[in-house]
Amino acid sequence: MLPGVGVFGTGSTARVLVPLLRGEGFEVHALWGRSEEEASSLAQELGILFHTSQSDDVLLHPDVDLVCIYISPPLTRQIAVKALGIGKNVVCEKAATAVDAFKMVTAAQYYPQLLSIVGNALRFLPAFVAMQQLLAEGYVGELQVCDSRVYGPSLLDQSYGWTCEELMGGGGLHTVGSSLVDLLSHLTGARAVRVHGLLRTFVGQNGAIHGIRCVTSDDFSFFQMLMGGSASGRGVGTGTGSGVCCTVTLNFNMPGAFVHEVMVVGSAGRLIARGTELYGQRNGGKEEELLLGDSGGTGQEVKDVPLPHLRGLGSMVTALKDAFQAQEERRLWARGPVAMASTFEDGLYVQTVVEAVTRSSRSGEWESVEVMTQEPDPNQNLCEVLLINKN
Amino acid sequence: MLPGVGVFGTGSTARVLVPLLRGEGFEVHALWGRSEEEASSLAQELGILFHTSQSDDVLLHPDVDLVCIYISPPLTRQIAVKALGIGKNVVCEKAATAVDAFKMVTAAQYYPQLLSIVGNALRFLPAFVAMQQLLAEGYVGELQVCDSRVYGPSLLDQSYGWTCEELMGGGGLHTVGSSLVDLLSHLTGARAVRVHGLLRTFVGQNGAIHGIRCVTSDDFSFFQMLMGGSASGRGVGTGTGSGVCCTVTLNFNMPGAFVHEVMVVGSAGRLIARGTELYGQRNGGKEEELLLGDSGGTGQEVKDVPLPHLRGLGSMVTALKDAFQAQEERRLWARGPVAMASTFEDGLYVQTVVEAVTRSSRSGEWESVEVMTQEPDPNQNLCEVLLINKN
Repeated sequence: MLPGVGVFGTGSTARVLVPLLRGEGFEVHALWGRSEEEASSLAQELGILFHTSQSDDVLLHPDVDLVCIYISPPLTRQIAVKALGIGKNVVCEKAATAVDAFKMVTAAQYYPQLLSIVGNALRFLPAFVAMQQLLAEGYVGELQVCDSRVYGPSLLDQSYGWTCEELMGGGGLHTVGSSLVDLLSHLTGARAVRVHGLLRTFVGQNGAIHGIRCVTSDDFSFFQMLMGGSASGRGVGTGTGSGVCCTVTLNFNMPGAFVHEVMVVGSAGRLIARGTELYGQRNGGKEEELLLGDSGGTGQEVKDVPLPHLRGLGSMVTALKDAFQAQEERRLWARGPVAMASTFEDGLYVQTVVEAVTRSSRSGEWESVEVMTQEPDPNQNLCEVLLINKN
Repeated sequence: MLPGVGVFGTGSTARVLVPLLRGEGFEVHALWGRSEEEASSLAQELGILFHTSQSDDVLLHPDVDLVCIYISPPLTRQIAVKALGIGKNVVCEKAATAVDAFKMVTAAQYYPQLLSIVGNALRFLPAFVAMQQLLAEGYVGELQVCDSRVYGPSLLDQSYGWTCEELMGGGGLHTVGSSLVDLLSHLTGARAVRVHGLLRTFVGQNGAIHGIRCVTSDDFSFFQMLMGGSASGRGVGTGTGSGVCCTVTLNFNMPGAFVHEVMVVGSAGRLIARGTELYGQRNGGKEEELLLGDSGGTGQEVKDVPLPHLRGLGSMVTALKDAFQAQEERRLWARGPVAMASTFEDGLYVQTVVEAVTRSSRSGEWESVEVMTQEPDPNQNLCEVLLINKN
């Protein structure tokens, strides 16, 4: 039995998510927007009966059993944690900081019977599902290098907002880089132990953002991850990813066609996902072979939502349907169909890597990735100041 | 009047160079090989009348006025410096170390009337000539990022030799990376001030190299250069390159088609050289446009010589012909046609960057690029030891 859905967000992802959910038979009962106007406008456009700018109105809505949160990162933690507390299943995007991500992990662990996934659509994209399968089957031999790049037009909103602010989770690294960090860990079955990065903001002001306002989020970044042990018992999990170098290049000063390429190179061959298609070449082979074409399917390219994300989102919604469908209760779900999803623990790892890359860009040094195991004392800074002043 | 040519080397570059030289009307009078057999075998194949394994036999040959040196890097300095001393014009490949490169600079400065160029063929490739021209004309606006990658099959020789040894100038960084370092400085009109890199040797042994022998040269590398002031009054020279980030990814564990891509991204558009073709897209434009196709021309792809190098080599030989042709004396040459060539000073800069990247890969830190201004005292290490022991 499919649960009723409440959607948080009025951005481009929320806009494409609602038709995808309906396409799989979900009913969308409520829409939340930052302002009454935004909520009302999109609700009308999509034909959603109930809209609000009060988060509790959605969370407490009796017909809402599954909450999809696609809003600005700084608000994600608060709504996700509250939703779990009220007993709703949660699909959300990443949080703004590691501390937020840690609080989400704590909440998810407290309600293990509830669904709690960070909806990284790339994991569900058929090209990457096939890539992971072929990696496990040894298509590339011993994995050596993952090389990925995403080029596209500016990620900034039309007006000044969180997308302009690094500390609010804006920028290429936070928004696009994080989904690659998650994907690469998923594909290699390993986690980054050390990272090195370089972030740049080439466009500090534009037609919409000027005067005293200035963009602090990156529009170009370039980072390397040295992978270590296997990812906490999930993913390929055979530890084949240990010692692998991952490189990521992101450039969002490139209007025009969107480039999304992930290549894994090993001792016996390579696999390359270009957009939504998967190609491969074994070292003996004469030419690259197309292993998986674009299935077409759910919708065309939508403004601001690259095709790999759109297609992946479609597959993720299908997986959600499979997870809920056979259950007798609206809130119950089967783990199998969503086993490949990113957990809140994965979200914390990803956020930790993102912060380590940012730190590395400042320090110029390799930074270790140390995933938080307990919440930092909010008074720690204060204590340090007191200690310093005492001496 | 075209000078007579003596060629050093029996490798793949020397093999394609001789027909190119003859195609432009040069006569090749002498061939040097490391061993009598190698020299004799290639001389017979190419129909060169005189061959030897004694370098002086070529350098002192009365019909040889131009010496082309395409041999293992550790031998380059010795032969290039001697050739200049004897009064011959020199085209060579890069040396093995910065100290060698410095000695070559000193020799070149001592004989300014002689031609002394480091034959980086990429500078002459029509796609890059056009790219530099378009950069100067402002096609991409303010330059931000140069992103380049070369993927190909293993660079190792069939048998154990200098290609396996990092200290002898083997590996992707030394052989291919150095020509990109040179090219990027030429294109941007700026030089790297700080670099960061990561080198890996994934294939330490293979069918031909095993037992106690082990490859120390890199087959994967990944480095970043932060560009500073303009390149010693040469190149674009407007200092537009200052603040540009250059990234280079080299992977030689990828048998099959050779990938050679250099992209420059600026505020108003981008230019991309794929192989020998140049593409561009302005930010307003709907689609990428082909700006320069492959002219075809000189020869087909040859084993071990990628097409961009082959085509560039052809253009370089044409430039050499133009430089010498109108002169009355066989040894005289005009600067104009070879003005875009890499000088020995450029060679020293490139070698300095390569060594800084290697250092960075060991230290994990950003390393400054400081071009040597005086030869290090060969007894310096000894002096330090003496000082330490004294205390």
